[in-house]
Amino acid sequence: MATAHPRTLLDDPTQTPLSFGVGARITAAVMTEDYAQVLTGALAGLDETGLVRETGDVSTYLGGAEQDLLRYVTDLGEALARTEHHATLTLQLSRGCPGEVVCELPGGAGPRRTETPSGRRTGRFATAEWALYPLADQVAADGTAPDHMRDIYAAIDYARELGTFRSSAHFVTRLEGDLGDVLATAVAGWVLVGRSVQHVTSHVSISLNSPSHEVRALDGARA
Amino acid sequence: MATAHPRTLLDDPTQTPLSFGVGARITAAVMTEDYAQVLTGALAGLDETGLVRETGDVSTYLGGAEQDLLRYVTDLGEALARTEHHATLTLQLSRGCPGEVVCELPGGAGPRRTETPSGRRTGRFATAEWALYPLADQVAADGTAPDHMRDIYAAIDYARELGTFRSSAHFVTRLEGDLGDVLATAVAGWVLVGRSVQHVTSHVSISLNSPSHEVRALDGARA
Repeated sequence: MATAHPRTLLDDPTQTPLSFGVGARITAAVMTEDYAQVLTGALAGLDETGLVRETGDVSTYLGGAEQDLLRYVTDLGEALARTEHHATLTLQLSRGCPGEVVCELPGGAGPRRTETPSGRRTGRFATAEWALYPLADQVAADGTAPDHMRDIYAAIDYARELGTFRSSAHFVTRLEGDLGDVLATAVAGWVLVGRSVQHVTSHVSISLNSPSHEVRALDGARA
Repeated sequence: MATAHPRTLLDDPTQTPLSFGVGARITAAVMTEDYAQVLTGALAGLDETGLVRETGDVSTYLGGAEQDLLRYVTDLGEALARTEHHATLTLQLSRGCPGEVVCELPGGAGPRRTETPSGRRTGRFATAEWALYPLADQVAADGTAPDHMRDIYAAIDYARELGTFRSSAHFVTRLEGDLGDVLATAVAGWVLVGRSVQHVTSHVSISLNSPSHEVRALDGARA
């Protein structure tokens, strides 16, 4: 566990993605017997610039800046979608709580303010369910009191602007549209809420090439 | 949004699973071209007693009591494991925030205290990554102040008792063992934290029949 120490511009933990615990865990599932080969193919050639990667049997951990994470998962999702197999992508995003069970940063070390990362269109349709969790325990060092619903509303407003918001359902927000826009929505919401809350996590389940998507053209899904 | 009204024993929202928003979303992925047929087969004959179900293209929502949810996901996971296909099960648990984006229960309506549900052994090995989120905004009506780390530690102690705790990793706790014990651990932790916090969610990613599990016998995985 970290001990308190005087903060300077040089050791401000909000300035460095890894010291602020900015990262993701990704599980990709491809509905084919050849899943191992398909996944290996999709992963080959992905640009890991700026990211730390640790592969496991349940998920792959990626640590690094928000923009790099969004680029990586967009590239991975597009590569999976282009195989034309039905696939699901499960994404956990976390920032503000490096370490393992116990956060190595004390409360009040953040929040971390960053630009909303830019996504890119992929030409592939996706549906998704998105949950966003501001995990504030206390008033931030700058005096900001946590207001979870205000933060969540701001994130959903952003989803409406991007055109990916479809509806609310039990426990999640339904997103639809270009895979790149869907991922950009989730990452942007996480960053937006993170401007006032140190520890924010988000979970996104994405469906690609679902048989139930066949009747919906991508152009039709976006007004 | 709900308006405040006098609480009686009859309309205490913590007493009824659906009015307290107790439920789950489940995504099952099976790595075979025949995934639709395999899933249909696994779902057929599952006991839905006590549960409300809504099937979607990204996940299936189930609402009902904690014990019924645990029984259902254990039966589903076992049925998937018995197909011998590699499969992943993604589980979101939520209690204390019925409704959609905005909770229909005001803060202080809970917490809901229930017995820790009993799991059952399946004879199938699983590995999992587990995240547990106490989403308390405020002191509960009974004066309990939220203490997230105390609650998380209690849940992890319970995982150690069940023998499923393996390690902590970035953002998650690693669980291993009999699928039934792994699921019982996650549901128990969610219920334990929910004794002091109204709104608690949990996310579990489970891997079944992974090629990387082949070298580990189930007996060897449990002391």
